[in-house]
Amino acid sequence: MSSLLIRNGTVVTATDHYQADVCIEGETVSMIGATLDVVAEREIDATGCYLFPGGIDAHTHMELPVMGTRSSDTFETGTLAGLHGGTTTIIDFANQSRGGTLEAAIQEWHRKADDNAVCDYAFHCAVTDFNADSRKEIPNIIHDHGINSFKIFMAYKDTLMIDDLQIHQLMEEVAEHGGIVTAHTENGDMIERNIHNNLAAGNKALKYHALSRPAYCEAEAAGRAIDMAYETGCPFYIVHTTCEETLEMVKAATLRNQKVHVETCIQYLLLDESWYSKEGFEGAKMVISPPLRKRKDQEALWAGMNQNLVHHVATDHCPFCLAQKEAGREDFTKIPNGAPGVENRFELLFSEGVAKGRIGLNKFVEMSSTGAAKIFGLFPRKGTIAVGSDADIVIFDPEIQHTISADSHHMNVDYNPYEGWQVQGKTRTTILRGTVAIDEGEALVSRGFGEYLKRPPRNSI
Amino acid sequence: MSSLLIRNGTVVTATDHYQADVCIEGETVSMIGATLDVVAEREIDATGCYLFPGGIDAHTHMELPVMGTRSSDTFETGTLAGLHGGTTTIIDFANQSRGGTLEAAIQEWHRKADDNAVCDYAFHCAVTDFNADSRKEIPNIIHDHGINSFKIFMAYKDTLMIDDLQIHQLMEEVAEHGGIVTAHTENGDMIERNIHNNLAAGNKALKYHALSRPAYCEAEAAGRAIDMAYETGCPFYIVHTTCEETLEMVKAATLRNQKVHVETCIQYLLLDESWYSKEGFEGAKMVISPPLRKRKDQEALWAGMNQNLVHHVATDHCPFCLAQKEAGREDFTKIPNGAPGVENRFELLFSEGVAKGRIGLNKFVEMSSTGAAKIFGLFPRKGTIAVGSDADIVIFDPEIQHTISADSHHMNVDYNPYEGWQVQGKTRTTILRGTVAIDEGEALVSRGFGEYLKRPPRNSI
Amino acid sequence: MSSLLIRNGTVVTATDHYQADVCIEGETVSMIGATLDVVAEREIDATGCYLFPGGIDAHTHMELPVMGTRSSDTFETGTLAGLHGGTTTIIDFANQSRGGTLEAAIQEWHRKADDNAVCDYAFHCAVTDFNADSRKEIPNIIHDHGINSFKIFMAYKDTLMIDDLQIHQLMEEVAEHGGIVTAHTENGDMIERNIHNNLAAGNKALKYHALSRPAYCEAEAAGRAIDMAYETGCPFYIVHTTCEETLEMVKAATLRNQKVHVETCIQYLLLDESWYSKEGFEGAKMVISPPLRKRKDQEALWAGMNQNLVHHVATDHCPFCLAQKEAGREDFTKIPNGAPGVENRFELLFSEGVAKGRIGLNKFVEMSSTGAAKIFGLFPRKGTIAVGSDADIVIFDPEIQHTISADSHHMNVDYNPYEGWQVQGKTRTTILRGTVAIDEGEALVSRGFGEYLKRPPRNSI
Amino acid sequence: MSSLLIRNGTVVTATDHYQADVCIEGETVSMIGATLDVVAEREIDATGCYLFPGGIDAHTHMELPVMGTRSSDTFETGTLAGLHGGTTTIIDFANQSRGGTLEAAIQEWHRKADDNAVCDYAFHCAVTDFNADSRKEIPNIIHDHGINSFKIFMAYKDTLMIDDLQIHQLMEEVAEHGGIVTAHTENGDMIERNIHNNLAAGNKALKYHALSRPAYCEAEAAGRAIDMAYETGCPFYIVHTTCEETLEMVKAATLRNQKVHVETCIQYLLLDESWYSKEGFEGAKMVISPPLRKRKDQEALWAGMNQNLVHHVATDHCPFCLAQKEAGREDFTKIPNGAPGVENRFELLFSEGVAKGRIGLNKFVEMSSTGAAKIFGLFPRKGTIAVGSDADIVIFDPEIQHTISADSHHMNVDYNPYEGWQVQGKTRTTILRGTVAIDEGEALVSRGFGEYLKRPPRNSI
Repeated sequence: MSSLLIRNGTVVTATDHYQADVCIEGETVSMIGATLDVVAEREIDATGCYLFPGGIDAHTHMELPVMGTRSSDTFETGTLAGLHGGTTTIIDFANQSRGGTLEAAIQEWHRKADDNAVCDYAFHCAVTDFNADSRKEIPNIIHDHGINSFKIFMAYKDTLMIDDLQIHQLMEEVAEHGGIVTAHTENGDMIERNIHNNLAAGNKALKYHALSRPAYCEAEAAGRAIDMAYETGCPFYIVHTTCEETLEMVKAATLRNQKVHVETCIQYLLLDESWYSKEGFEGAKMVISPPLRKRKDQEALWAGMNQNLVHHVATDHCPFCLAQKEAGREDFTKIPNGAPGVENRFELLFSEGVAKGRIGLNKFVEMSSTGAAKIFGLFPRKGTIAVGSDADIVIFDPEIQHTISADSHHMNVDYNPYEGWQVQGKTRTTILRGTVAIDEGEALVSRGFGEYLKRPPRNSI
Repeated sequence: MSSLLIRNGTVVTATDHYQADVCIEGETVSMIGATLDVVAEREIDATGCYLFPGGIDAHTHMELPVMGTRSSDTFETGTLAGLHGGTTTIIDFANQSRGGTLEAAIQEWHRKADDNAVCDYAFHCAVTDFNADSRKEIPNIIHDHGINSFKIFMAYKDTLMIDDLQIHQLMEEVAEHGGIVTAHTENGDMIERNIHNNLAAGNKALKYHALSRPAYCEAEAAGRAIDMAYETGCPFYIVHTTCEETLEMVKAATLRNQKVHVETCIQYLLLDESWYSKEGFEGAKMVISPPLRKRKDQEALWAGMNQNLVHHVATDHCPFCLAQKEAGREDFTKIPNGAPGVENRFELLFSEGVAKGRIGLNKFVEMSSTGAAKIFGLFPRKGTIAVGSDADIVIFDPEIQHTISADSHHMNVDYNPYEGWQVQGKTRTTILRGTVAIDEGEALVSRGFGEYLKRPPRNSI
Repeated sequence: MSSLLIRNGTVVTATDHYQADVCIEGETVSMIGATLDVVAEREIDATGCYLFPGGIDAHTHMELPVMGTRSSDTFETGTLAGLHGGTTTIIDFANQSRGGTLEAAIQEWHRKADDNAVCDYAFHCAVTDFNADSRKEIPNIIHDHGINSFKIFMAYKDTLMIDDLQIHQLMEEVAEHGGIVTAHTENGDMIERNIHNNLAAGNKALKYHALSRPAYCEAEAAGRAIDMAYETGCPFYIVHTTCEETLEMVKAATLRNQKVHVETCIQYLLLDESWYSKEGFEGAKMVISPPLRKRKDQEALWAGMNQNLVHHVATDHCPFCLAQKEAGREDFTKIPNGAPGVENRFELLFSEGVAKGRIGLNKFVEMSSTGAAKIFGLFPRKGTIAVGSDADIVIFDPEIQHTISADSHHMNVDYNPYEGWQVQGKTRTTILRGTVAIDEGEALVSRGFGEYLKRPPRNSI
Repeated sequence: MSSLLIRNGTVVTATDHYQADVCIEGETVSMIGATLDVVAEREIDATGCYLFPGGIDAHTHMELPVMGTRSSDTFETGTLAGLHGGTTTIIDFANQSRGGTLEAAIQEWHRKADDNAVCDYAFHCAVTDFNADSRKEIPNIIHDHGINSFKIFMAYKDTLMIDDLQIHQLMEEVAEHGGIVTAHTENGDMIERNIHNNLAAGNKALKYHALSRPAYCEAEAAGRAIDMAYETGCPFYIVHTTCEETLEMVKAATLRNQKVHVETCIQYLLLDESWYSKEGFEGAKMVISPPLRKRKDQEALWAGMNQNLVHHVATDHCPFCLAQKEAGREDFTKIPNGAPGVENRFELLFSEGVAKGRIGLNKFVEMSSTGAAKIFGLFPRKGTIAVGSDADIVIFDPEIQHTISADSHHMNVDYNPYEGWQVQGKTRTTILRGTVAIDEGEALVSRGFGEYLKRPPRNSI
């Protein structure tokens, strides 16, 4: 069995923070000690560096078909980019087709990912056509496919959206079998009306994308879904929360002793609606759904982390090249929605969060890794540095400064929303299941190195 | 240096949960591994047992002068009882006397505790006479005495209570020097009126104690203190939170991005106001302030833990023997307020929380130990099992059932509120700083073994 | 011109309360004075009586087709019953048929009401099939038909319910033309799921009607509709509010400076869910939607009146005879939903409200008459006793006690939900547009006496 | 008996709005009719004019001793100014002196007002030294003096403020005898700390007055007082509410079915904190407590009226001449707090409220007159135009525009906060108890014409 010894690093988990040597045998951590008196095949000196659990990004869309095109990262390019930035596991969404089965969706996603992904991966199952037949598939999806999380869309009427009756029934079934429901919470009807009114008024510029999807639409749907989760007793998780209004719904639910899991994404923490006032078509780079919000929303989200009300920072990574975005230059409804982020999330959260004093080191680990691992059943295999866990470790040098640029990033997209941002701290080495995957910017693993992760039914936490 | 090896236990921290061998050298943990190939002076087989971080009880009152008598546990008897139950650290309150300095209070508490305490201990400084002089003492208390937490009483007018102006000024000073303010939140004026009215109406039975201190008095003061903490930017912690109404104030504060630290006590989770309807003078055993509440309050507190809005479960351990309680048989205002708990908290929280499925194992550790360690600056020396931390470890057998009784407990008080309760799980061995302090019910350490713990100014978390 | 002089009564309006003589010439009030020195064709001595503005019931369903049957009161029988009880104006709902126009619905309702109604009447327009064509009808409905209020159903999927997109668009159109949207707020999807689950579990007894329509379904829909009204700027009114949870949504909306109009019905103030536990099929008499709630909801509704947050007490009068109710003896979904009330509302509200001290006299007038008159544009023609207003006056003797019974009531239904209730105060004489319509229980007007009331676009209040 | 006939005006009450002739005999209204066929000693043609109930200002301070000086209006000058503007009744505060009795305060206020006041007047009793003796005076104050309203100060520690225990006891006593407690809600301790900190930092400019009294101080005290009113069951009224935060407390209280009466003042509706940034010492003109707030607070107050959550618009009229204000040029704590308003309130509320479409005509009457009359027991003698009520009528021409100026106003103060404001609508004639008091700007009554108004214990409404 191969062995690897990391000396003198500072181990950081969601709880702990201490200097130690970490010994890896095979794919897992075997020993942690003040000074380990062992010999390993390879030793790495991590003096001055943090050892973080490998990042988990619970919200990505690789090769997603959208509006006649596809998101530009494959599982190969996207996961390799993730590894460069410190992310060792992604959870992508296997989207059911209208008229198709859940099983078919999962098979399709396996075709895309298996033998291609470079980092480890799991799938959420996105249910877009819920009926008596798809309901019957749920137990099998959970128990055989190892997929315990199901996503619903409350927006995108007539394509992805399911109605409240379907949501209720899905929640009942998922709760019974130990799963969790996750939701894109925007009121599709409200948005459709806004889009319709804008188009009718000739308001086709990209800024009307955001104006058609105001915060109240997101909060209304969040509140409604929280009600349904309360009624059905189903564990519930809101994806890509953007705004104070949605957090208010989560806070209100605490009054009836309810707990809701909340994800936000790095872009909602760092960017704001002023993007949509940029000159020309520049703002199209951040045409995403929900859209970027106000500064007060950023504040609420950062505070939410420290209040323990936000549990994961993901990306909703769904890149499109500028040529793809061009499709909507004359009509915002034709801009493919999505933006890149999988490579930069981990470092940006450290730089803007820890280095700027907004969150502590343990909170950083919880937000970038542990929180998602626990909610989605990857823990303790993933999400921590502990004896017996997968040796997914990021050796992170907090002193290195670097600059983000599309010229140097590894994502398959020709722009970067954080172009020119100065970042404090850098992923020096990424170790995945005991193998050095990235070292000083060089990839040492390749296509197909990633493993599919089955996840057991959730234990209540 | 002495060494101790614990084999085959399951290490549980606020985040992790894995099987491993733990090696202790001297007073701290030196190594954790799947199977440690080392030789130690002593080995303990912990197969089938959890290894928990030693319990921390952040709210005790040993030998506290109250109404002409004293709480019946000394630092010796109380801390030894704590060790028996799995608590390795207490934080007691050094109460300023009216007219006296803070310094004098701390010196007095050292006289009581030093060379007496068996487990480790720290002090909060209770400020009951805040003025320009006591304000000047604050920096010294924090930096020289290693006491970063200050308590205020919003009740007990004319003896302990300070007014809003004083609270503001104390908060300003404490915030500036990196401390935290903790508060007994009950509106003293409201309570005084209720007591006065009850006495005037001839309502002197013990049940009027509780009826004089309704939940709204607690919640009002909590809300007011939260406002003052918000305004002064002072970290803030509510001691012995009992009710849903107070939690509502904490939840409301989240709406303005504020975070409040919340402590409850084991009795508020497990007992309710029906105690005050017991026959005869039995209810006097639980005459405490604030009083026991309703079942809906218990539900809100348990839910609060899982919502991450309650951060520590303490005891407010302040025992009085039945003969002492007798002083108030004819007049509830003369019953010394307080009840025992330091020995039973840890096991009861496991039994009623974990074994009954209300909280998970990690949450148990957070509530019984890690939360308080982090809030009050004992971490990482205390509050976790990690390389470099104090080897305060409870070897806990989840399968052993036992029954609580004053006949067998070690606290110096002649009743136990949980008399006859069946408990699932038992502290088999308590290790304090690498020394086996309690083993199978036998005390192996004695008076004076405990160390005083200085705590640094708080880092923001 | 005919003239009528009412001497020595105590005039009560939503504001005033004074003793005076009231002189009526033709159909309107011409003079009010301490002692009027005039001669009239007829004089009535009202010594010891209140003179109240004629009652307005803004929520009735005469001859409504429901589940293959019809509500048992025609416009003739129902409005005559109303006059007996003190109600001089009703607003009934002209329900659009799926596939039909709004115009057709209004014509159909005119066919039912014209030449039949005995008291005055107006229509709300219930929109059940909103599309581009029905949108175009809105201005005409408001301006030509004098109907400024439009009702939506958020429940009854596939028959009456319209979706959020349709609601938004309707609100936009109505707001633009000076109308108001009223809503039956229950989440149809949630209810459908509950009904489905109950039927699947063999739960077909009538009590499952109520269990399928819990308060949270009503409150969720209320909150959502309030959001849509906020966004579109459309005046908004919730019909038959039953519960504290819905009022909480209204109260929450006050925080963003929004005002919502709230109607409750007399049965929600006086009856509760214990009805559904009555023996045998008795409870079917109160199978209505939403169902009866808890006592705490009654308290919230009474308080809501005094808080000025509830604006009208109507009936949702929709009677079915016991033989009609029988259709659902074996399956609660087949029980026609509805119950009688138009005759008893006015006297019950006085007896249970004013006589029992829950509301004052002015509030009684506001709830029974003025509130609805102002919200729906009947004021000042209806809803007050003032010079120039229609002489719709109830001479009410507060000292007379009587007992409600189906044996003596005038509604065309063979039971009365308030059978045997003792009522304090009685409508002695009902005057409609200057004509004595009812006197001491005798009807002096007949079929066709009622006039259709056009209502102008609303002025903001 | 003298008689006066007002022809062709439009009578407006809190409910009604109609054209009529109004006949006055002696001091009261005797008859209202479409066209009155009577002969009176005097006739006034009010064509084109509104007839409003005479304004009531429930919050004035004439000749109030403050900081070694006195407010500059006597009961003579202040009430005459009120009449010019349309205010026919004021309620002034008889402030207890520390060490003095309530009786003494009332006697002192009678000495100031009797034979001096030109308009009618009543007193609130301000309790600043509550103890067992003053408690005993309460029933007598209510029943013999006809004063049913008691004011407390939660600010001004050591001079006016009473503590929570005293407030509770006062509320108990007042509730028992049918009175109401009104409160100046600012947390005196919080403010004292802010002032102290500002002075210590050398921040003595007038803007620090406002910065020392932030909205949270007002809201905290409001919430606390609302709690005490809830607990004691005492009717409760907040004087001079300024901000959204306080309204939030009122709105939150609705959730537990509580009703709170709310007063704001005209200056909080129309002026904002930008006053304190005016050049030089100009801002001192509006140094009042609580201070002027933000625009969002104005919006919340206007909305509050339409939500029926604000019940009266008063003035807190307490003028000081510029020379008096000068005392605090070098130290904001020495600026006498107060500003004029009694003359302009009525017309400004019409102009800024009704003429600008923020409130309707009935709401204007409710806010300027009826609301206060009902809450404080002046109704129905005052607060309406109805048969039997005092003939206090303002003939108001909505078409006349005029400009406010200290040059032309009648208040005894050498500036006007609304200097230069264009006002739409003007009080043409003020009638007090049937006597034309002001006509076209000319005073026809003089010193001593005003009567003292005893008010009965409140009926619950």
